Amino acid sequence: MTSSPLTANFINQCKTLIGSQNVIADSEMLKVFECDALTALKALPQLVVLPETVEQVQAILKLCYSQRIPVVPRGAGTGLTGGALAVNNGVVLGLSKMNKILAIDPNNRTAQVQAGVRNLAVSEAAKAYGLYYAPDPSSQIACSIGGNIAQNSGGVHCLKYGLTVHNVLQVKLITITGELLTLGGGGLDAPGFDLLAVSIGSEGLLGIVVEATLRLLPIQPCTQVLLAAFDSIAKAGDAVAAIIAGGLIPAGLELMDNAAIRVTDDFVQANYPIDAAAILLCELDGLPEQVATDMAKAHVIFAANGASEIRTAKDSDERKRFWAGRKAAFPAVGRIAANYYCMDGTIPRKHLAKVLTQINTLTNTMGLAVVNVFHAGDGNLHPLILYDARIPGDYEKAEQLGGQILELCVEVGGTITGEHGVGLEKLNQMCVQFSSAEIQQFQRLKAAFDEHDLLNPGKAIPSLHRCAEFGRMHIHQGQLPFPELERF
Amino acid sequence: MTSSPLTANFINQCKTLIGSQNVIADSEMLKVFECDALTALKALPQLVVLPETVEQVQAILKLCYSQRIPVVPRGAGTGLTGGALAVNNGVVLGLSKMNKILAIDPNNRTAQVQAGVRNLAVSEAAKAYGLYYAPDPSSQIACSIGGNIAQNSGGVHCLKYGLTVHNVLQVKLITITGELLTLGGGGLDAPGFDLLAVSIGSEGLLGIVVEATLRLLPIQPCTQVLLAAFDSIAKAGDAVAAIIAGGLIPAGLELMDNAAIRVTDDFVQANYPIDAAAILLCELDGLPEQVATDMAKAHVIFAANGASEIRTAKDSDERKRFWAGRKAAFPAVGRIAANYYCMDGTIPRKHLAKVLTQINTLTNTMGLAVVNVFHAGDGNLHPLILYDARIPGDYEKAEQLGGQILELCVEVGGTITGEHGVGLEKLNQMCVQFSSAEIQQFQRLKAAFDEHDLLNPGKAIPSLHRCAEFGRMHIHQGQLPFPELERF
Repeated sequence: MTSSPLTANFINQCKTLIGSQNVIADSEMLKVFECDALTALKALPQLVVLPETVEQVQAILKLCYSQRIPVVPRGAGTGLTGGALAVNNGVVLGLSKMNKILAIDPNNRTAQVQAGVRNLAVSEAAKAYGLYYAPDPSSQIACSIGGNIAQNSGGVHCLKYGLTVHNVLQVKLITITGELLTLGGGGLDAPGFDLLAVSIGSEGLLGIVVEATLRLLPIQPCTQVLLAAFDSIAKAGDAVAAIIAGGLIPAGLELMDNAAIRVTDDFVQANYPIDAAAILLCELDGLPEQVATDMAKAHVIFAANGASEIRTAKDSDERKRFWAGRKAAFPAVGRIAANYYCMDGTIPRKHLAKVLTQINTLTNTMGLAVVNVFHAGDGNLHPLILYDARIPGDYEKAEQLGGQILELCVEVGGTITGEHGVGLEKLNQMCVQFSSAEIQQFQRLKAAFDEHDLLNPGKAIPSLHRCAEFGRMHIHQGQLPFPELERF
Repeated sequence: MTSSPLTANFINQCKTLIGSQNVIADSEMLKVFECDALTALKALPQLVVLPETVEQVQAILKLCYSQRIPVVPRGAGTGLTGGALAVNNGVVLGLSKMNKILAIDPNNRTAQVQAGVRNLAVSEAAKAYGLYYAPDPSSQIACSIGGNIAQNSGGVHCLKYGLTVHNVLQVKLITITGELLTLGGGGLDAPGFDLLAVSIGSEGLLGIVVEATLRLLPIQPCTQVLLAAFDSIAKAGDAVAAIIAGGLIPAGLELMDNAAIRVTDDFVQANYPIDAAAILLCELDGLPEQVATDMAKAHVIFAANGASEIRTAKDSDERKRFWAGRKAAFPAVGRIAANYYCMDGTIPRKHLAKVLTQINTLTNTMGLAVVNVFHAGDGNLHPLILYDARIPGDYEKAEQLGGQILELCVEVGGTITGEHGVGLEKLNQMCVQFSSAEIQQFQRLKAAFDEHDLLNPGKAIPSLHRCAEFGRMHIHQGQLPFPELERF
C-alpha cells in the first residue's frame, strides 16, 4: 500500500484518462462517499473516479497498479458491512455511471447488464417478456448488480430461487493489472476452475466486475401469502423447521418478532396481530393447483405447531399489505431508535428457537434492545440492535453484542454472514469461523489475483496477526466465547 | 515433479503409514489402475495407495509433499477424460476404501458421506426418508461422490436440479501439505471466498476431497415421460429450444438420433420409432396437477414443432421402457463399434439444430460415423465417435474429429465440456476456449493451493507453451479453425 497521499499529478492523470467530469476530488462532494449503509463507520476518500466504459476501468486500474495505489470498488453504497469504505491514500472507483441494460434475451432467459444497473431495473426491463430477476435484497430499489455480485446478495426469495451466485451465468472482471477476464458462460458448467463462483461474494478483493449475464425466471402465474401468529418465538422457529421438513419450499418465509410487529404496525398499519410473540409470512408460488395444495399443507403445519391465528391474503391488495410491514421494517425501526445496527448471521433452521432465545438473553445482559425480522426459511438472522450513538459507549456495546451473536451462530454450526458480507465489520468473527489454515488459503487465493494487495485492502479476510490478537483478547476476558452455552 | 522412480524406502514408508494391505506396488494388480473410462489413454502407475481414514490421507500427502512426489487422486475410475491417469514417478491415491455414508439428516435434508461412496448408494440410503440425491451421471451405479465433485458431474436430471456444484453444501478437502480445510457450510452462503465452488470441478488439482455434505431432495409424487419423434434432427433441436422458451423445465430432456435409436432398439427392444431421424424423451415431475398441465403444454409444443409422433408412457413399466434405450445407449454402441470416443461439449440451446447438422458434415468429411445421444435440454452434447483402434490412424482421426467438434462448440458460444471435465483429453481445446490472461489466472489459482504442482500435474489446465504450440499447429494447417463456418 502506498504511504503517501495521492499527488496532484496522479489526479490529473486520472482526469486525462476518463475526463475531469468523472473525477471527484472536492471534499464537499466526496462527503457523499464517506460511508456505506453501515453509517457507524466513516472514512472520507481523497479521490473518487466514476468511469463510464470498460476501457476506462481498465485504464484507471493499470495506472493505479503501476503506481501501487490501492483501489476500493463501490456500487450503490447500500452495503451493510463497510465494504466500500475508502482506504488511506487510495482511490474509490464507483460503477454508478455504468448503468446500461445491454440486452434481454427471452429465448435463453438472460439479461446482459453493466455493473451499475440497479437490481430492480432488471426485473422492470424483463417484465415485458414475463420474466424477472430473482435475487431481491431489501435495498433492491437502490442497490446495484455489481454490489450484489460483490456480496452474493440474497433477499426474501432466495430460499426458493437462490442467491446471486445461483443466478449469474457470466461476469466480465477487470483484474488489478487491467486485464479483462470473462468468467463463466451460457451453460450450466464451464471448464477450468470455477472463477465465476469465486468472483461472486469476493467483496471487490479479486477484481472489478464491469458486466454480468443474469439468469431470468418466468413470472409465476399464481402467488399466495399466509400469515401465521404464534404466542412464543420458539413455536414460530419450530414451525419454520417443520415447513421445510414437510417438503414445502416457500418463495419466501419470513419471521418478525413482537418488537418488529409493533414498530411496523405503527408505521404502515399492516394490521398485524399486535400481541403475537412472532408472526411468519409464508409466500407460495407456482401454478394455481400447486399453490392451493401447498397452502393447505402449510396451514396444517402451522396449526400443528401451535399457531394462534392463521390468515390467508384474500387478494393481491391484502397480499401487498401482508408484505408492507416486512418491507417497511428497517425504516420503521429507524423511527424508534436513534441508531440501529443490522447483524447478519445464518444458522441451521433446527436451532432457530434456541438461538432466538439465547439472543434475547445476551441482549438483556447487555442492557440493549433487539428487533428481529429476518429470512427464517434459510436460517438467515437479521437482528437489529438498537443503540444511541450520542450516548458514549452505546455503540461499543452494540458492536460487542453483534459480535457475540455472530459467534453464537458459529457455535451452533452456522456462519457469520448470510448475505451482507464481511467487509470491515466482521473481520474478527472470521477468526472465529475459520482455522488459520483456512484463512491462509483465502490469503493465497487473494494473492493469486492481486499479489500487492491493492484491491480493497484490509477488508473481508483478516490477517493472522489480527486473529491472534482477537484470540488473546477473548482469553484476556478470562474465557472462550460462550463457555456457558449448552452445546446444541 | 521428481525425475526419478519411487524408491523402495518411500514405498515402505507408505506401508508404515497406512498398512501394507493398503499399498499396491505389484505390476499385475496395478494394471487395474492403468486407465479410466477413456481407455484409449493408458499409463501404468508405479504405486497405488488406498487409505482408509482422513488421517491416512493426510499422512500420505505430508509424506509426498516433503519429498515433492506427485499425487494423482482417483475415485471409481469411471472418468472419461483421462483425469485419473497416473503420472511418471508419482503415486495414485484411490478413495475407494473410504466408502461410508456417515449420516442422513432428514430434517435438514442432507447426507454426509465419504468421498468413495457410490453416487447411487446415496439415493438408496435416502429413499427410506422419501429423499434422493439429484445428480445422476450415466455411470451412477459405479461412480463415486469424490469423482463427481472432481468433475462437477451432471446427468439426465441436472437440467432441473443442477450439477454437483448445486447439490453439495460442504466438503472436507486435504491440501497437498496435509492440512484439512472445511469448505462451505450448512447455509446457502458462507463467508470468505467461495472455495467450495472452486474445489468442485477442480479435477484433483487443488486438494483431495475426503468427505462431503450433500443436499437431498424430496422424491416427487408424480413423474411422466413423453416420447416425441421427428423426421429431421433440426426439428428436434428446435423443439428443445421451444420447450425451454415455453416456460417448461423438464426433469430430463434427452435427444437420440437415428443411429442411436437403431442401435439401442437392437439391444434392449425399447420399441422406439425406428425410422425417426430423432426422438426426444421428456420427463416431467411434480404434483399430479402440475405434471398434467406441463404434459399438455409439452404435447402442444412438440406438435407445433412438427413431431411425427408423440407417445405418453401409460404406466411406470412403459416409463422404464422409454428410458431403457437411453440408459443402454453407451453399451449398445459398444456392440456395433470396436471402439468409441465420447465427446462432451455444451452449446446454447438455440444452436442445437445448426450444430448437429455441422457435426454430420465434419463426420462425413472425416469418413467416420457418429452416434448422438445427449442432454438436449441443457445443450450438453455427447457425440459418440465410432472408430477401430486396430486400424492404424483411426483413433487419430477420431481424436481430430473430437477436437473439431469441441472447437465448433466454442465457436457458437458454448464450452468444451458439459460434465466430463478436461483431464488430459481437452488440454488443447482449453487454449481455444480461454485467453492467455484467463489461463494464467487458472495457473495462479492452482499455485495458490499447490505451489510445487504436485497434485494431478499436467491435467485440466494447459501451459501457455502448449497453447502457443497448438496455435502454431492450427496456423500450420493454413487456416484458423472453421473459417468456412457461418457465424451464428
